[in-house]
Amino acid sequence: MTTAARQRTPVTDALRAIQGPVRDRLEFVVDEMHAIVSSDLPMIEQVSAHLLRMRGKMFRPTLTLLASAVCGDPQPRAIRLAAVVELMHLATLVHDDSVDHSVLRRGLPTVNSLFSHQVSVIMGDFLYTRAHAALVDVGDLEFLRILTTVANELTIGEMRQLAAVDGLDFSEDDYFALIRSKTAVLLSAACETGALCGAARYRSALARYGERLGMAFQIADDILDYTSDSAVTGKPSGLDLREHKVTLPLIVARPELTAQGRRRVEELFATEDPDDQLIGDVVAIVAEAGGLDRAHRQGERFAHEAEEALAPLPDSPVRSALTDAISYVMDRRS
Amino acid sequence: MTTAARQRTPVTDALRAIQGPVRDRLEFVVDEMHAIVSSDLPMIEQVSAHLLRMRGKMFRPTLTLLASAVCGDPQPRAIRLAAVVELMHLATLVHDDSVDHSVLRRGLPTVNSLFSHQVSVIMGDFLYTRAHAALVDVGDLEFLRILTTVANELTIGEMRQLAAVDGLDFSEDDYFALIRSKTAVLLSAACETGALCGAARYRSALARYGERLGMAFQIADDILDYTSDSAVTGKPSGLDLREHKVTLPLIVARPELTAQGRRRVEELFATEDPDDQLIGDVVAIVAEAGGLDRAHRQGERFAHEAEEALAPLPDSPVRSALTDAISYVMDRRS
Repeated sequence: MTTAARQRTPVTDALRAIQGPVRDRLEFVVDEMHAIVSSDLPMIEQVSAHLLRMRGKMFRPTLTLLASAVCGDPQPRAIRLAAVVELMHLATLVHDDSVDHSVLRRGLPTVNSLFSHQVSVIMGDFLYTRAHAALVDVGDLEFLRILTTVANELTIGEMRQLAAVDGLDFSEDDYFALIRSKTAVLLSAACETGALCGAARYRSALARYGERLGMAFQIADDILDYTSDSAVTGKPSGLDLREHKVTLPLIVARPELTAQGRRRVEELFATEDPDDQLIGDVVAIVAEAGGLDRAHRQGERFAHEAEEALAPLPDSPVRSALTDAISYVMDRRS
Repeated sequence: MTTAARQRTPVTDALRAIQGPVRDRLEFVVDEMHAIVSSDLPMIEQVSAHLLRMRGKMFRPTLTLLASAVCGDPQPRAIRLAAVVELMHLATLVHDDSVDHSVLRRGLPTVNSLFSHQVSVIMGDFLYTRAHAALVDVGDLEFLRILTTVANELTIGEMRQLAAVDGLDFSEDDYFALIRSKTAVLLSAACETGALCGAARYRSALARYGERLGMAFQIADDILDYTSDSAVTGKPSGLDLREHKVTLPLIVARPELTAQGRRRVEELFATEDPDDQLIGDVVAIVAEAGGLDRAHRQGERFAHEAEEALAPLPDSPVRSALTDAISYVMDRRS
């Protein structure tokens, strides 16, 4: 691994501060990820190299490492756990992109677009099973209990996502069940497994923190899809609407829509390939009906609960970093 | 589960005899599979119901149950293990069909054709992670070690399969590495995990038996693709050639091809969508060059080694059934 390759990770100042207490160990996590997916097969090596180049902000491993350090004495196996969590996340992204026929992820071509649909299905399976094998090697059934349940919940989230399409009657409860399955359970597990590597007494507090943080994280993500600038996020704005994905801003805006606004929204969901004009109109309609503000307030509620969950933890730079991670999630622009 | 649904399982007389010693427990395996994949989500229930209807001959669970009964006192957890092995196999088939865009499997529509590509990718992940969670519940790391390694090896097999396409230089060694990864390791694990449920002292003998049986099984399958009648197998013959998949009959025929025959084979691999005439010609060319006979002899070699592996086992109807399973694999017509 060259330094240049490592520097590709897009890290903002805010995230850099959060990662401060675990920066050195985070480098080991990257090395561990490489070691876990290494293979004799050139094709696998090639795709893995691409995937590890396009890896993101390492937010989940950061949470695992921070959680493990809450009592000041993190166990070495936290590195492995953090790598496994990130590889599971990566496997999910690869299958997501394949299912959605996405062409870009984090500004780089997806596996399905760069290689093929076949390769992306197989590589998702490869990453997941390799991560799992590395987890089995740790030799502690408790980790397997947590992460296998989460892995299954992630697939249920994907299935719920299919139901969140083309449905103007997709409810707030449906939405919360969806984002819990597809996002919050993994952030919760990242924190919980971290806790089991040096801060076991805070296991349930950290699991709760991760879960609430995950809810806020996904809501912020879904708001960002309405407001984002493609130059920053690496994907076009209004993508969810383009794909007929119903998210919180629209759900909470619905009761406030004018008859005219509602007709335009219905038109979008009845149009197979909505154009930029139609998408732009619906984005504006949702914003005018207060959808973004209301969604943001829902996110703040979860953010507040995440902060409350940290109350029992001892004061330390690690705890501060976990608190800062909440603001980071709420304020991020990509 | 109605009796009618159970009777859909296509079982020949030979297989029925092999399953004799474990017939009652095999019914429990079916129930266990249903229990493992049960879900509140209607979409998942619908796809699972379809998949369990199209389940095949339950050959792998049969091996697990037989292996567990070699010493006459099988443990109850063998049922769970057999169900997990079959669900892992099913998950692989679902992704295989998705990757290959297959429309039929065992004479029924595939998940990707009946539902969608999206659903098949997600359901493969769902089945696999559910099976794994059920395995974690058993609480024995040894099973996880065996089956997680196998799960990863299966994905490597899939990746090797991609390299077995369009390649007239795909060697015999490449082929054996491929069928070991994609077939033999799972049959071996079916037997090995079974052994750990009541016949631990024969663990390595049964693992070896399963591995050799798996090699013979896949060779027979690949020969069948050249000789099969679609009315029996539920899929058209020459399918591998149609998809440019190089298997043993062609590999062992290659040195014996006439210049004319070789040109025709090259033509097939250079043709994007070969027609029935071209496929039929290559099937005949491979047969005339002795490819089927030579491949069959290779299969017999593995069959013989499978039989040798059974030598240490005590004489019993269970051992006889395992021996009969070898002939069944060699002689089957579907």
